[in-house]
Amino acid sequence: MPLDRDHLIGKEALMILLQPEKKLSKELIDLGWRSCKGKVGSMDAHKVVAAVETAAKNQGMIDPQLYRETHALYHTIIEALSGVTRGNNQLGTVLRTVGLTFSIVRGNPYKDEREGEWLAVALYGTIGAPVKGLEHETIGLGINHI
Amino acid sequence: MPLDRDHLIGKEALMILLQPEKKLSKELIDLGWRSCKGKVGSMDAHKVVAAVETAAKNQGMIDPQLYRETHALYHTIIEALSGVTRGNNQLGTVLRTVGLTFSIVRGNPYKDEREGEWLAVALYGTIGAPVKGLEHETIGLGINHI
Amino acid sequence: MPLDRDHLIGKEALMILLQPEKKLSKELIDLGWRSCKGKVGSMDAHKVVAAVETAAKNQGMIDPQLYRETHALYHTIIEALSGVTRGNNQLGTVLRTVGLTFSIVRGNPYKDEREGEWLAVALYGTIGAPVKGLEHETIGLGINHI
Amino acid sequence: MPLDRDHLIGKEALMILLQPEKKLSKELIDLGWRSCKGKVGSMDAHKVVAAVETAAKNQGMIDPQLYRETHALYHTIIEALSGVTRGNNQLGTVLRTVGLTFSIVRGNPYKDEREGEWLAVALYGTIGAPVKGLEHETIGLGINHI
Amino acid sequence: MPLDRDHLIGKEALMILLQPEKKLSKELIDLGWRSCKGKVGSMDAHKVVAAVETAAKNQGMIDPQLYRETHALYHTIIEALSGVTRGNNQLGTVLRTVGLTFSIVRGNPYKDEREGEWLAVALYGTIGAPVKGLEHETIGLGINHI
Amino acid sequence: MPLDRDHLIGKEALMILLQPEKKLSKELIDLGWRSCKGKVGSMDAHKVVAAVETAAKNQGMIDPQLYRETHALYHTIIEALSGVTRGNNQLGTVLRTVGLTFSIVRGNPYKDEREGEWLAVALYGTIGAPVKGLEHETIGLGINHI
Repeated sequence: MPLDRDHLIGKEALMILLQPEKKLSKELIDLGWRSCKGKVGSMDAHKVVAAVETAAKNQGMIDPQLYRETHALYHTIIEALSGVTRGNNQLGTVLRTVGLTFSIVRGNPYKDEREGEWLAVALYGTIGAPVKGLEHETIGLGINHI
Repeated sequence: MPLDRDHLIGKEALMILLQPEKKLSKELIDLGWRSCKGKVGSMDAHKVVAAVETAAKNQGMIDPQLYRETHALYHTIIEALSGVTRGNNQLGTVLRTVGLTFSIVRGNPYKDEREGEWLAVALYGTIGAPVKGLEHETIGLGINHI
Repeated sequence: MPLDRDHLIGKEALMILLQPEKKLSKELIDLGWRSCKGKVGSMDAHKVVAAVETAAKNQGMIDPQLYRETHALYHTIIEALSGVTRGNNQLGTVLRTVGLTFSIVRGNPYKDEREGEWLAVALYGTIGAPVKGLEHETIGLGINHI
Repeated sequence: MPLDRDHLIGKEALMILLQPEKKLSKELIDLGWRSCKGKVGSMDAHKVVAAVETAAKNQGMIDPQLYRETHALYHTIIEALSGVTRGNNQLGTVLRTVGLTFSIVRGNPYKDEREGEWLAVALYGTIGAPVKGLEHETIGLGINHI
Repeated sequence: MPLDRDHLIGKEALMILLQPEKKLSKELIDLGWRSCKGKVGSMDAHKVVAAVETAAKNQGMIDPQLYRETHALYHTIIEALSGVTRGNNQLGTVLRTVGLTFSIVRGNPYKDEREGEWLAVALYGTIGAPVKGLEHETIGLGINHI
Repeated sequence: MPLDRDHLIGKEALMILLQPEKKLSKELIDLGWRSCKGKVGSMDAHKVVAAVETAAKNQGMIDPQLYRETHALYHTIIEALSGVTRGNNQLGTVLRTVGLTFSIVRGNPYKDEREGEWLAVALYGTIGAPVKGLEHETIGLGINHI
């Protein structure tokens, strides 16, 4: 059951966002891990969700034919969004906006291979008033089995 | 008003947690930035809050004689905790526990020096059932003016 | 992807609670579906979580050796609990108590067998002041892929 | 004060939804109980609220001339909605949609007739992505004095 | 249906707290309005709830034999508490404490006497760290039909 | 650190709303305190936020050139709004509307002048269905260091 401290899926997703040049290591790719990243800026929380979902489907992170994969992704995104909004998942409805980069990583972070695949979604960027400069940083991370 | 993209207080706090050897650069220290880090594991959310507050006071991150500094710190911690708990700030009351490292950074991340000092609190580690190994990663970041 | 309207996992879990004599049909059992039920009364939300987790492990609803199964179950329980508490997962901390029966059902409610197994947790009973009779009914249902 | 276990208003509302042919028994009707049911599908939480309110007024479940009755109904609906959304009452704003049937029951579920009339609102159906088939079941129940 | 702007139940409850000498006017008492006030300081949210409930019963604000009255009062208190805590009803679990005065008012604030009796609970005082002086003011108001 | 019981910033903000003729005393003005008030009615929570922000900027309550002041104000408004909505900051999205007066007060409510300036935002008025008369009173108060 224990996490493999060399294969931390959340940390991978976070470092891909925080260090522009960072990519999955050859070791992780050889283990079958996959990742992608993208950008989204919006006052609409649903557009943030949609941007991550679209990237996940287009980049082959999930199988769009299986609802169980979309379901796993959705809850992972919402968990990440709750970190960004610090709890309420509200943006424009309370007069604030975000400019985010996002990453998605899929792989097994546990020592036991029977733990199967997991999904991490990280969001990092700024949140603030809909006026240029009136903003500070924000981060969110969701992790789910898939 | 704009953020100085080379002086991102949230990113500094996050990198201090995610890269064990990471410290504030000489440039930031020369600008008067301060930081500290620590560890806390608990099923009680209030012990996480207390651990960060105690470190902040002991390490000279805030002036414990001024309530405005304690007030700024408290809300910063709670925001970070809402990322860790993905919204509800509940741990043992819903049968889960955390093992976290935390960092605190104080400095001005804006280009305009009149923006004064800000505080970032980052929390990173694991959250899960109160059984060894039944856990996944989690992160939270709070940012506030001080 | 579509739900099989004759194999509704949530409805099965709810009917098992609402009709004492109700059991899974032979058809569902032949398809590999499993279910169990139990009771818990407490002012501590974590005891409700623990009661459902313990039953799930003891009745073979999940494999306790796999964190991904415990993780799936945990989030399913918390979703059901949020229906019971109508949003905040708080019981004794806001001076109320519950007397609940619970059911767990595991199976594939979708027409496509590749959707794999899903888990439903239903909670039904009363919520109210910690005084006999000062209570009304409450229900909650969580559904997750496993 | 105690609930009459043969006159459970929440269970009546739930069974009316879960069993299409189910109606209030003659005994309950003779006691003055009333019920109605309806359907609503939407990405807007406010349209779910409006559909239930409109049905309640049109079917004589509440007196639209009295704000206390509208107030009682509103909070009952919001409680049921929090079960459906598992806590946040958000639908389209977080990119999800519902297809629901609803029931409303009015009567006194307590042994003491001085407890007066109560209202139960139940919601049952599916919640998921705004794509056909990407959905699972959901339920919610609100109960209030009127 | 409209509120009688001279008989505002929330304003009465608030003014009783904010002005120590304030009492219900003879006009309101002649109309059958009742009020009481009290004090509570605690890190436990449930003790705040209990203090208001006990005062309400001891001062004859509600009939303790009727659950519908206890139910109405409970939700009114919880609404007031959510203003005090600004949303989460958590005190000691997130390392903060309150020192509050509370008031309860019962009467009909509407022009139409068929609107019957309503209940207002107001809480006012300080919230902050469990250290003397580390606190600021807070208020909350709940209103419900009874 | 202690609050000066004669210079309660929250109480000042509340009394300005509850008593139409109330203004800051000459003593407080001599100490540099400032205040303003206004009105807003809307089904959109973001319009409530915008109305208070606009008044604060136009009336010189904050310096619009400094993000730290806008940031302090924003969180103060959101805290007040959570009292008004009793926790979720949702209005039209759950089919309700508000008619509010608001006040803003800026000053130092502590005995120690090093505590610097604080901000209080109070909101008082009615909340209810988007139909005239279907409403009751509501209040909210936010307090923050600036």
